[in-house]
Amino acid sequence: MTKNPRRVRRARAQLDLTPLDESRKRFFSALEEVGFFTQAPSEELDVREALGRVTAAPIKARRPVPHFRSSAMDGIAVPSSQTQKARPDHPVRLRPDEDFIYVDTGDPVPEPFDAVIMIEQVEELDDGVVEISHAIDSNANVRPVGEDFSLGALVVERGQRMTPEGITACLNAGILRLPIRKKMRALYIPTGSEIVSPDEEPALGEYPESNSQLFKGYLTSWGAEVAIAPIIKDLPDMIRKEVECGLTTSDLVAIAGGTSKGREDFTAEIVDELGRVLVHGVAYHPGHPILLGLVHGKPVIGLPGYPVAAWLGLRQFVRPLIERYLGLTASRPSTLWGRLAEEIRSQPGTRLFVRVRLEETSEGYLIHPLRGGASRLSSLLQADGLLVVDEASESLRAGSPVTVELLRSPFSSNSFASHNP
Amino acid sequence: MTKNPRRVRRARAQLDLTPLDESRKRFFSALEEVGFFTQAPSEELDVREALGRVTAAPIKARRPVPHFRSSAMDGIAVPSSQTQKARPDHPVRLRPDEDFIYVDTGDPVPEPFDAVIMIEQVEELDDGVVEISHAIDSNANVRPVGEDFSLGALVVERGQRMTPEGITACLNAGILRLPIRKKMRALYIPTGSEIVSPDEEPALGEYPESNSQLFKGYLTSWGAEVAIAPIIKDLPDMIRKEVECGLTTSDLVAIAGGTSKGREDFTAEIVDELGRVLVHGVAYHPGHPILLGLVHGKPVIGLPGYPVAAWLGLRQFVRPLIERYLGLTASRPSTLWGRLAEEIRSQPGTRLFVRVRLEETSEGYLIHPLRGGASRLSSLLQADGLLVVDEASESLRAGSPVTVELLRSPFSSNSFASHNP
Repeated sequence: MTKNPRRVRRARAQLDLTPLDESRKRFFSALEEVGFFTQAPSEELDVREALGRVTAAPIKARRPVPHFRSSAMDGIAVPSSQTQKARPDHPVRLRPDEDFIYVDTGDPVPEPFDAVIMIEQVEELDDGVVEISHAIDSNANVRPVGEDFSLGALVVERGQRMTPEGITACLNAGILRLPIRKKMRALYIPTGSEIVSPDEEPALGEYPESNSQLFKGYLTSWGAEVAIAPIIKDLPDMIRKEVECGLTTSDLVAIAGGTSKGREDFTAEIVDELGRVLVHGVAYHPGHPILLGLVHGKPVIGLPGYPVAAWLGLRQFVRPLIERYLGLTASRPSTLWGRLAEEIRSQPGTRLFVRVRLEETSEGYLIHPLRGGASRLSSLLQADGLLVVDEASESLRAGSPVTVELLRSPFSSNSFASHNP
Repeated sequence: MTKNPRRVRRARAQLDLTPLDESRKRFFSALEEVGFFTQAPSEELDVREALGRVTAAPIKARRPVPHFRSSAMDGIAVPSSQTQKARPDHPVRLRPDEDFIYVDTGDPVPEPFDAVIMIEQVEELDDGVVEISHAIDSNANVRPVGEDFSLGALVVERGQRMTPEGITACLNAGILRLPIRKKMRALYIPTGSEIVSPDEEPALGEYPESNSQLFKGYLTSWGAEVAIAPIIKDLPDMIRKEVECGLTTSDLVAIAGGTSKGREDFTAEIVDELGRVLVHGVAYHPGHPILLGLVHGKPVIGLPGYPVAAWLGLRQFVRPLIERYLGLTASRPSTLWGRLAEEIRSQPGTRLFVRVRLEETSEGYLIHPLRGGASRLSSLLQADGLLVVDEASESLRAGSPVTVELLRSPFSSNSFASHNP
């Protein structure tokens, strides 16, 4: 028999799959070894420009809040010692300015005054003199200096995203500029002769380039600055040049497409030439043809072309990558508990990620697996959550109790009440 | 006794509090009556610029996805009828181009081919002829046209925020531009003679203007475009002018400060002169001195000066206002269930909002109320959730089962696993 190119291809058609946990470990260990995370840079920003950004150091109060002793209500400020003999049957008279001053909420309470009597408990007589009928303790109705934040107190921890509350607190505590982790710069390279601009009408066999929008939307929300390269046809030299060029200005390069082992799948070859392929093929579904590599001390990721597969790859590898790069306390997923509406079959040795829809019933949540493979974008639009079937399981029966990770995207208005027993 | 200005003030010092539900109803009914929500405008945007924005109409597929019949795997496309007699002991031979063509995943499957046999099940002989040992059904391993979205199918509903998935789906379905609700334009006017720029060092009795950052951060994330006016001292004429001027270019004006009934609390007076005060004082804690008004057919809100009070006012009134303005399906809060760590006392007739910290224990969540009044910004930074004690309750005992609304801000990385029974 003559040598057939298809034969050659068929012999290469199997990826040697690495378990998910091992894949992540290998990827992050290699990045740690080259100091990728420790070298991540910071910048100084005006606190009012830092919303959503991650602090690079503990942020401490440069001024106590409040910075002076103030009244907690409308009333009169008094020296508490002057009030000690006051009783309803034996009121005490106080002279203005000498024995008391009027204060509104937030006004200073200067020495020798040390307590505030609320205005409702003050009887006003002629000539500005007032009468009080109760003794008051020192510091009563007074906000001490530093009640909210003392001088030097921690306002925002290192590795936290700045919230509106955090910014407001900083301004109160005299913090105008603060050290912030620089965003990760990520480049997305769409590849494939069948990929065309979404602005064109795709012909038979052509697909509009669109996964870059998944990449851009999510990475931006996680803390990256995203650039999208022009579409590159299946020309390994051009892809190689774009990767090399991209790595000079980016911290992460993603090559979209070409991650299987077909004739036109050049991604592994290119990464292997330029640096190291750490993982090619992950034992999970959907989306196993993913590639994790290291080139010039930076991560290069090959993303599969199917949108659900690309999406899962971003969640599993890129999100934790960005969080570590930014020094962010890793996010804990929001989960809820429910019962499976129908059986799920899984392949042992593979971790299965099932997109699910939630139905709220009087007996808690019913979890409906969504149909369709990695190509079905509609399943992502419908999904409320993600159910994980681990490598050891073969199937989950209908009615099984399961925990679902909620997919509340920061863009979406949907959120779900958890199961309240 | 001579007339004392303090007496006058004291007589005015009580706000007539309106229950929270009634306040909201009055506010939204008045806005509905003047057509504030129905007149909210839309614009047409490039779908790639629409992340997080709200759709103004149902978005339907202008092209089926996929738009041609394609192979779901690598293999050969065949007319299924040609395979019906194939058995392991009686293989069928197929000639290239006439009886089959090679296809990769995603390639078109043209007539008369109607099924794909995976490459692993194809025996390749000399001269390009192949042998197959199994019959195959019509449509097997083929993605039909419109499998993901059929022509005209709903891709994104009206009143939804655009997600990365939604944008990607639109590009695939030939949707390049789409109708989007315009952002609400909101103006924040900081008032008060004691308020100074945060760039200055505040003197005794002065406070840095900072609540505008709470307003800006949250409103921006909810879907508004925020402008912040310069600080205005307690000069009612200047505040009035700023409100009138602001209403010509804004859909919402917030006056910060001056919402109590002190001598320098002009907000109610100004709103009453320009339009209608709907509610002045809400029966909730913390933050009852809030003002809801209607001027020139638009909402004007008076926000209290204490940060926690301002924050609660934004959540209770401004967030639902923006959601309705944008025609957004209202967000359902994420809640979790736990047990109260210590007693909470509440004043009957007032709805109490308690900031809480969560502690995860082996027996579920323990809910710790945070101490401190409306002035304590630090309590907002520490809070994981909000616990509501309704108007009828006087106290909640330690150990009571309670439901907590989670305060996961879109900026924050914190999120909590729910209680899994």
